[in-house]
Order: sequence, then C-alpha cells, then structure tokens
Amino acid sequence: MKTIFCEFLDSQDKKGVIKLKPLGVAKNQVKKPTLPGWKDIVTEIVIDKKYALGLDGIEDYSHVIIVYWMDKENECHLKHHPQGREDIPYVGIFACRCPQRPNRIAMSTVTLLGRKNNVLKVKGLDIVSGTPILDIKPYTPQYDKVGKSKVPKWVNKLVF
Amino acid sequence: MKTIFCEFLDSQDKKGVIKLKPLGVAKNQVKKPTLPGWKDIVTEIVIDKKYALGLDGIEDYSHVIIVYWMDKENECHLKHHPQGREDIPYVGIFACRCPQRPNRIAMSTVTLLGRKNNVLKVKGLDIVSGTPILDIKPYTPQYDKVGKSKVPKWVNKLVF
Repeated sequence: MKTIFCEFLDSQDKKGVIKLKPLGVAKNQVKKPTLPGWKDIVTEIVIDKKYALGLDGIEDYSHVIIVYWMDKENECHLKHHPQGREDIPYVGIFACRCPQRPNRIAMSTVTLLGRKNNVLKVKGLDIVSGTPILDIKPYTPQYDKVGKSKVPKWVNKLVF
Repeated sequence: MKTIFCEFLDSQDKKGVIKLKPLGVAKNQVKKPTLPGWKDIVTEIVIDKKYALGLDGIEDYSHVIIVYWMDKENECHLKHHPQGREDIPYVGIFACRCPQRPNRIAMSTVTLLGRKNNVLKVKGLDIVSGTPILDIKPYTPQYDKVGKSKVPKWVNKLVF
C-alpha cells in the first residue's frame, strides 16, 4: 500500500528555535496538578481529526507513551529537593522527573483502554485537563524495556 | 538547601505554538541515519554550561532517557509500512516508532556510561551527530517500567 503523507506540525527557524503545534489535547476530570493518585484516572486524548488515520493499528498495543507539554508549570529549577521534600537529597533537575524543567516536555507510559476514531482512552496519565499533546508512541519493549536498572535509593521514598 | 532557579528554554505564544530551544547537542561518529547497529555506539550529550548543575546526581542512575528533535527527518507520514517493508502491516504513524512523525520528537532509553561537568556519555543512542537535545530524564522504573505488555506480532519482525 502507498504511504499517506501529511503535514509536519513542527519546524526549526534559522536561530535553531524548534516550533511545535499540539497534535491534540487531554480531557479528564483533573483541574490542577496533584502528586499521587493518578493510577485510576481515565483520560481521553483527542487528536486533530486530520491525523486520526495515524492511530490505525494502535489498538493492538497494551500500553502507549503520551508525550505532552506541561503548560501549567511556571517554575524552572536547576537544582532542588525533588517533590519539595527536605528529606530527599538535593539534586539537579535532570536527575529527577519533577516538572520544573527548562523544556517542559513530559512523557508518561500508560495503559491503553481503547481507541475510537481520533480519540484514545488511557488510564493512569498524570495530566491536567486541557494539556497539549505533542506525540503518541506505542510502548515497545525492544526500545523501552530495561531489564536491570539502578536508581538512587531516595527514588523509592518518593510519592508516585 | 534552597532551590536554584533557571531560565525556561521554552514558551507558548498566543496561537498555542510551543517554542523550544535545544538544551544541548549530540556528538558521535554517526553522520547519517541508519537502521540497525546502534547498540554499541557511544555518544556524548553536551549540554549548555548554564545548565550543567542540573546533571548533579544523574551519576547514580544506570539508564537515562534522551529526548531530542529529529532534525534530519524530512518526510511526514500519516500511514505507511514501518521501516518501508511491505511484509509489515500498513499502520498509522502513531502505531509505530518510525521517525516520520508530525512532531519529530524522539526519546531513547540508553545506558549511562558517565558524566563530566556538562557532558554525559551514553551507549546505544540511535542519533546522528549534531542532533538537538531537548531534555534528559533518568530512567525510573516506577514511571517507565511495564511488567507485562502486548505488542502486535509484526513488531518482532522489525530491525532494532
């Protein structure tokens, strides 16, 4: 079958600035960021209808990775105590998953509940309603799975 | 200890367009994209010195997720045969990990070999030298690890 082409949503200008347009938007009952308790929240990812065909085949995966831009975050940290907790070591922003990053790009691996046309239904996404979605990727063990990994001990003290 | 703040590299304009500035750049021996054989390639991720402190503590992780922008990709596909192979089903771009995406954001989970000031050394990154880096996240099983996942059978026929 022949490749169907589409328009890029992104571009780079002469100064190296990368411009992205949202692919879609998240819809759920969450109005403001909160730390724990995302596990059972169901979110609809509504993408631009022009890109709906791009979801064909995604139903065959159990998990997807939602890439989004954290538009509600308004602090940028270089170094801090993760989750604002003094009992957790003082580390750089690239040594934790906190949202106060120089580029507010986030990615969350979640359970795919279903797809209908241009809408995905997912469970466990830590996102506020209205958040712009940049990309959707299928969770693929060959790329994403790490057998044995090491993390610092303090990570296990965080709230997830 | 007190939070050290820094400047955002990103912003959103009134039309909803998200603008990102690269955090750094990838340096390795790879001049053009190629499919397999990334496993043993060593890449240096050189970040802007202003953000070097943000890496403090990353040495304690075994794996990191590099988020980058695929500036060398110049086709946008809505639906295609992944890896251009007719023996693989015809699926949407969001049902595969191919680079021809509307927003050319990529993320790769790789082994962290070491860090020196503003430079990370990683192994297995599928990236061309000169690629702009957007973010660096520590691989954190609580967020990234999926116990049992399902993927379509054709995924196992791809080249990794």
